[in-house]
Amino acid sequence: MVTVVFEPSGKKIKVDKGLLVLEAANDAGESLDAPCGGKGTCGKCKIYLKEGVLGDITTSERKKLSEEELAAGARLSCKAIIKGDCIIDIPEESRLGKQKILIEGAEAPVIVNPLIKVFSAVLPSPSLEDSKCDWYRLEDALADNSGHETITMDISTLRQLPILIRDNKYDVSVTMYKNHVVAINDSSVKNTYGAAVDIGTTTMVAYVMDLSNGEIVGVGSMMNPQIPYGDDLMARISYSFKPENLQKLSNLVVEGVNKIISEGCEKAGIPIESIAEVTIVGNTAMHHIFLGIYPKYLSLAPYCPVVKQPIDFMAKDIGISINPLGNCHMLPVVAGFVGSDHVGVILSCDIHKSPEMTLAIDIGTNGEIVLGNEDEMICCSAAAGPALEGSSIKFGMRAANGAIERVKIKRGSLKVSYETIGNIKPIGICGSGIIDVVAEMLKAAVIDVTGRIREELEDENDRIREGDQGYEFVLEWARNTGIKRDIVITSDDLREVQLAKSAIYAGTSILMEIKGITAKNIDRVLIAGAFGSYIDITNAMTIGLLPEIPMNKVKSVGNAAGSGARVSLISKDKREEEKDILKNLNYIELATHDSFQDQFVSAMNFPHSDLSLFKNVMKNVYTPLPPK
Amino acid sequence: MVTVVFEPSGKKIKVDKGLLVLEAANDAGESLDAPCGGKGTCGKCKIYLKEGVLGDITTSERKKLSEEELAAGARLSCKAIIKGDCIIDIPEESRLGKQKILIEGAEAPVIVNPLIKVFSAVLPSPSLEDSKCDWYRLEDALADNSGHETITMDISTLRQLPILIRDNKYDVSVTMYKNHVVAINDSSVKNTYGAAVDIGTTTMVAYVMDLSNGEIVGVGSMMNPQIPYGDDLMARISYSFKPENLQKLSNLVVEGVNKIISEGCEKAGIPIESIAEVTIVGNTAMHHIFLGIYPKYLSLAPYCPVVKQPIDFMAKDIGISINPLGNCHMLPVVAGFVGSDHVGVILSCDIHKSPEMTLAIDIGTNGEIVLGNEDEMICCSAAAGPALEGSSIKFGMRAANGAIERVKIKRGSLKVSYETIGNIKPIGICGSGIIDVVAEMLKAAVIDVTGRIREELEDENDRIREGDQGYEFVLEWARNTGIKRDIVITSDDLREVQLAKSAIYAGTSILMEIKGITAKNIDRVLIAGAFGSYIDITNAMTIGLLPEIPMNKVKSVGNAAGSGARVSLISKDKREEEKDILKNLNYIELATHDSFQDQFVSAMNFPHSDLSLFKNVMKNVYTPLPPK
Repeated sequence: MVTVVFEPSGKKIKVDKGLLVLEAANDAGESLDAPCGGKGTCGKCKIYLKEGVLGDITTSERKKLSEEELAAGARLSCKAIIKGDCIIDIPEESRLGKQKILIEGAEAPVIVNPLIKVFSAVLPSPSLEDSKCDWYRLEDALADNSGHETITMDISTLRQLPILIRDNKYDVSVTMYKNHVVAINDSSVKNTYGAAVDIGTTTMVAYVMDLSNGEIVGVGSMMNPQIPYGDDLMARISYSFKPENLQKLSNLVVEGVNKIISEGCEKAGIPIESIAEVTIVGNTAMHHIFLGIYPKYLSLAPYCPVVKQPIDFMAKDIGISINPLGNCHMLPVVAGFVGSDHVGVILSCDIHKSPEMTLAIDIGTNGEIVLGNEDEMICCSAAAGPALEGSSIKFGMRAANGAIERVKIKRGSLKVSYETIGNIKPIGICGSGIIDVVAEMLKAAVIDVTGRIREELEDENDRIREGDQGYEFVLEWARNTGIKRDIVITSDDLREVQLAKSAIYAGTSILMEIKGITAKNIDRVLIAGAFGSYIDITNAMTIGLLPEIPMNKVKSVGNAAGSGARVSLISKDKREEEKDILKNLNYIELATHDSFQDQFVSAMNFPHSDLSLFKNVMKNVYTPLPPK
Repeated sequence: MVTVVFEPSGKKIKVDKGLLVLEAANDAGESLDAPCGGKGTCGKCKIYLKEGVLGDITTSERKKLSEEELAAGARLSCKAIIKGDCIIDIPEESRLGKQKILIEGAEAPVIVNPLIKVFSAVLPSPSLEDSKCDWYRLEDALADNSGHETITMDISTLRQLPILIRDNKYDVSVTMYKNHVVAINDSSVKNTYGAAVDIGTTTMVAYVMDLSNGEIVGVGSMMNPQIPYGDDLMARISYSFKPENLQKLSNLVVEGVNKIISEGCEKAGIPIESIAEVTIVGNTAMHHIFLGIYPKYLSLAPYCPVVKQPIDFMAKDIGISINPLGNCHMLPVVAGFVGSDHVGVILSCDIHKSPEMTLAIDIGTNGEIVLGNEDEMICCSAAAGPALEGSSIKFGMRAANGAIERVKIKRGSLKVSYETIGNIKPIGICGSGIIDVVAEMLKAAVIDVTGRIREELEDENDRIREGDQGYEFVLEWARNTGIKRDIVITSDDLREVQLAKSAIYAGTSILMEIKGITAKNIDRVLIAGAFGSYIDITNAMTIGLLPEIPMNKVKSVGNAAGSGARVSLISKDKREEEKDILKNLNYIELATHDSFQDQFVSAMNFPHSDLSLFKNVMKNVYTPLPPK
């Protein structure tokens, strides 16, 4: 008996001489990666001898390890025989089930175990005694490593199969999606890549990921190239009523996706053909238009999607220019206005698996809201309109350079201080700025609970004045702006904000009503979307956009939709969970819900007609002014 | 209680008034076809009221039956209510499981039950209460009729789905391959078509079939357009070593297949897009080249095919111009020189399901031979060379106009009588003529057992003479031929025939040897291939091409390969059996078999060195002349 110590764990074991290092490691509870089943063909169970002696270096080891590695003491644990006491170092990359964690906002940790994997396959050469066909030869060689009894392949792979296996001397590396052969390469190829894509109405992002460890190796992004054909979804859907226009919008977004994946690949220094899978999230209209599916009926009651469930296509069939045989996975959509971006939020934040009662809101033109936990979830889409994104507001704009994004108004003097994106002269106001300015106008008593600008202050302060469309509040004077005009908040603007916030609040209320709970029962609130990262949560509660919930329960989760695409890409368990989400998520059509109208009207006031719902705001923030 | 009589069976039943005709028919043991489950939407359970009264004609019946049909007493049995005694006629097309029989040669009867089927689907209109997606809406509507819980579809179908179901007012006809949607049409489409294709080295045939009844509705055929690139397989495989040449040959045969399917469709008066499935047989080289699979290694030991098992492709993926989403099914191949044409023979003749010990031979450049029954089958490919097809014979030719196909030689005078194809002056001799002439030369004692032309007869008869390449026998004088030259059989020709027939006989012997049986144990011999239909079986035994077996056990089965493609097209059971055949069929590599050389040499003599194997020939046909 001799003693073997494994580093860095320090695990020690007594074994008989003659045992393989791999066997000793297993006995010691060290899990080594040996996908070839100990044949010495995959080279993945590499260890380093630190002290002591092992058996002679075998031919397989000379083949799989470089001169430098051998000089540094590297061996294959499945071939190296223990000859006496020794200390063996197990490098991180040789460990089985290496757990990589992806955390951003409230995202849950995910074990990297993608559907796309690379397997080594060493095929016996054909002979008169063994003249099975090339397909079966490859299938048999893969069965041990991949766990798939049978394989499938595309005609283009089949056409090249006899050449590929012979040119590579029957030693190949096979990239597989489930049991489908996506690529056959020489045995040096050990790795493959994927891309997770978020197609937003406004922006699109692609995360290029190394599928061996789940790391993001490159990111590409751009504005959605469909914007010239309509700022909002309804405009783009209407434009697509004509099939040739749908074709145009579809081509634009497909080309856009190709461009951002390509940009990510360039940053990662890999060819785009090495991408073997893409996962995609987007709202339902983007999902349909991307696939070229006629989207007209998304815009007409009862707003049926054409397809809800997760679907997969070969890249070449939908024009995606990664490996043409690679898989494109579309996460599921829930309803005409609750898309796979929202499923991505649920998936990445584990709402469907958590015991915590979670409220997640993605604020945009449509506010998608989900409420629930592992038992059941309900969701709805609140037609908030574009006010909270800066549209339909007189000086509203996107969150771009020159946008006012933070605002303070001094009570009494009504002096305004603000910050702009890029620290330049203001040219407009974006979503987070709009929420701030309304909250500040409430706190400074510029407006009352009904959102009326108190014209009675006109004589006291020149920021309050009558404009073309009724009373308005001057945020900044022309001389200090980048547009040489006064930037103001109008009465109409306030009305738009009221409509938006009451739609979202009413949606949230109805979900709580259906669940039979109140804000007190909510364990966590997740604000998703790029916009969600920038808004001031207290101000959002001050104006009554969000229900009153302790701040420590509220989190911005950033682009959780994109995270959903990423976890789906790197984890087959998460991929499977998409179906569970679809099963346990009930969609509520707000417009036809009995109490929607009442809830909506009640939520029009700032923060709400029922002030008992906003006790904390009243106690700590401001006392709402009653209507005149 | 009233009495209902069903015609033409005459079955009588007493039932309560108010019962549906469909229910009464079921009770009487009459099986009516009602794929829509009695909803009145498919119109397939039509019956005719001959006497008596039924309930009022319903709206569904007015929709599904024409004015003429209604006037003739037609009703839907699922809607018509029995009101009193009546006599009802069930037309043949309304019967369930209508058994159509396809018999040609030794083919077994097949029940028509194709993989491609048309189902009627009536979808509930979407509403706010029922806003499921279009896909699930179709899936649910199909589940009842089709028995498939879930469906799949191509992106191109999905793109059109919302338009198709709405334009057709939620009442559609769906063509499906297994659970895959191949076409969505208006509800008047009740039928679909398929094509069975046999790609021979020399000729190609397409049978267009009505999949509702398994009838052939049109046939197209042409010479294989690859012929200019090589008469035989080896030449075409060699030509394909260069990938661009493979591409060329592949395109030629794909275009050829499209042309003959199109020809069949024209004869049937249907558009080629209404073809929803194609089944294809061919030898292994034709199979590979058709699919564009690199065929080089078929020609090099150990002659591995790239793929053996049955495989399916979407028509558009391999360039077949039927419904682009239609399925192309390739029957399996067995070895480099035993192709799916041979599997087609086994499949259509039920060799794999019969208790009878069957020997089936497809004579061509390679003679594919199978021996076995339901328990197990063994097969081999005998390299016969092209002599028996008329090639490599001085005046040999294909079975075309002017070919001598039947020959008699008068013993003593050696007067030759013959028949030519097309009854014109002879211009050469085809395979069946070659077998005849050798048998007749043996019977007339022109040649001895070694195949030597008895030059000692030279002085007695001017038909025997010394030519450029040794002695020869004059079949016809120049003045009577279409080529103005004497048509002769040379010593070299006889040698070629010896090589061919001994290869096939040796193959047959080795299969029997492996099975441990003799010719006596063989229950039936099937001669397949167009050539097989024309040869004189007695003469084939006389020269020792076939083992001596009672004539009543021998059958020509014509193009049984093509029949294999047809039964695979119309029967999913037969399709399934292809895999059983592959499992129970062992391939023997003749060239490396221990006793091949001995068997081959022994079979060189006419009919064989061991004359005890040909007792009947010697007793009834002729006494072989010993060598000089």
